[in-house]
Amino acid sequence: MGELVLVKLGGSLITDKARLETPRMDVIQRLASEVHSACEEQEGLSLVLGHGGGSFPHRPADKYGTGKGLKGAHACKGIALVQDAASRLNRIVVGALIEEDVNAISVQPSSCMVTENGAISSAFLEPIELALKVGVMPVPYGDVSLDRKIGCSIVSTERILDFIARKLKASRVVIAGIEEGVWEDYPARKKMAGQITPENYEEMIGHLHGSESVDVTGGMRHKVERAMSLARDTGIRTQIINGSKPGRLKDAILGKKVSGTLIRK
Amino acid sequence: MGELVLVKLGGSLITDKARLETPRMDVIQRLASEVHSACEEQEGLSLVLGHGGGSFPHRPADKYGTGKGLKGAHACKGIALVQDAASRLNRIVVGALIEEDVNAISVQPSSCMVTENGAISSAFLEPIELALKVGVMPVPYGDVSLDRKIGCSIVSTERILDFIARKLKASRVVIAGIEEGVWEDYPARKKMAGQITPENYEEMIGHLHGSESVDVTGGMRHKVERAMSLARDTGIRTQIINGSKPGRLKDAILGKKVSGTLIRK
Repeated sequence: MGELVLVKLGGSLITDKARLETPRMDVIQRLASEVHSACEEQEGLSLVLGHGGGSFPHRPADKYGTGKGLKGAHACKGIALVQDAASRLNRIVVGALIEEDVNAISVQPSSCMVTENGAISSAFLEPIELALKVGVMPVPYGDVSLDRKIGCSIVSTERILDFIARKLKASRVVIAGIEEGVWEDYPARKKMAGQITPENYEEMIGHLHGSESVDVTGGMRHKVERAMSLARDTGIRTQIINGSKPGRLKDAILGKKVSGTLIRK
Repeated sequence: MGELVLVKLGGSLITDKARLETPRMDVIQRLASEVHSACEEQEGLSLVLGHGGGSFPHRPADKYGTGKGLKGAHACKGIALVQDAASRLNRIVVGALIEEDVNAISVQPSSCMVTENGAISSAFLEPIELALKVGVMPVPYGDVSLDRKIGCSIVSTERILDFIARKLKASRVVIAGIEEGVWEDYPARKKMAGQITPENYEEMIGHLHGSESVDVTGGMRHKVERAMSLARDTGIRTQIINGSKPGRLKDAILGKKVSGTLIRK
């Protein structure tokens, strides 16, 4: 296996913010096509392509408080609805990849991971390893989890990719969202952080709030926190880029220099 | 946890044989409603509800020889297409269960099991155990698998339920298909085996051929072989019933006496 790159397509990038459960099919198809052509261009490249859920699972997760554990009479209904919504979006993404001739398969996190107080405590990654070995692209996604302590929780795509990056020793991580990178002055969007390192991390994190839209997993702050923890522990770098700009995802996957924020040790 | 019953809804029962990838929505909805009312009637009942794929995954599995391992230039495409088709039908089944107020979640076998020369060699069942513990119904299904030796394979719902039955110590298994039970004189359908035991097994298996329709996992013979192996090894009984007859699935789940074939030690 060559270089292993983990990619996340942000939920807000691939779903319509304004309309519930509306995938942005044109964007999904273009991104799938960029993934395809990156893989064509760099032989031996292995990708795990995760994606967020956007408005699909976040609404039921929010309504039933699924991320906070099994509380209330309808908590089990929440588990079912969140998983269903997340998985429906996943089918759309995987379907688009297949249409672009990418041999992609779903990896359903609620089937292969469990959490303990919200943190991934155990996972079965052998299917991902075997898929990469034969040249099939695993596509995990933000999902509900069964939790050893609190019954249920939510696992964000960032947590999943973080877990996979550590276990499978990824080379790097690319997060494609709808922002140019990490803004120091959000929401003014005039000053972007080119790099976040342990030296400027505390200052940068101070600028960050949660995501604007309904996002039960914490938005940009969560992304930067996880990426810095990964960089500190393993040296693996994360690049946050704007997937709305055609061609940028492809270039980032190929390791070319693109506009965005690099989070490194 | 009370009694654990494993149920399989046959692929031919829930999909249209004549038309590719056409779910029989009326049948799926009725079966979902029977599952719901069985669970309402018997408190403490735990169900794992598996289902076959019918015409959804069998066609690409057949076309690409997915069950025979990674062979040929397009084998990886086969893996992707089989998984996609199986998972799309699963979303329909889980969606119907949710609509009937069953708190059901998918369990994606290709994410949580791997095979070795086609036999399940390792599986992560903790999500299923935790789901049952909180009262959520796991719904696995016949799927593609990544295989340690031959690259890929197909895992039938029977193999999956057999594996789960042994590991989680199920009380019994119910297989609902489109036949009354196991015919001794198929296709004449005049003489049905009431019971199959180690005493008459060899004679009975002699009567059985593979399934009529495209079924890469071997049809009725495969079901009876797996059920007898399970009965011999563990004492767990399997009942094969006709799910096309309204009410029969519910009665069988509840352990009532219904027409069909019982496979026991």
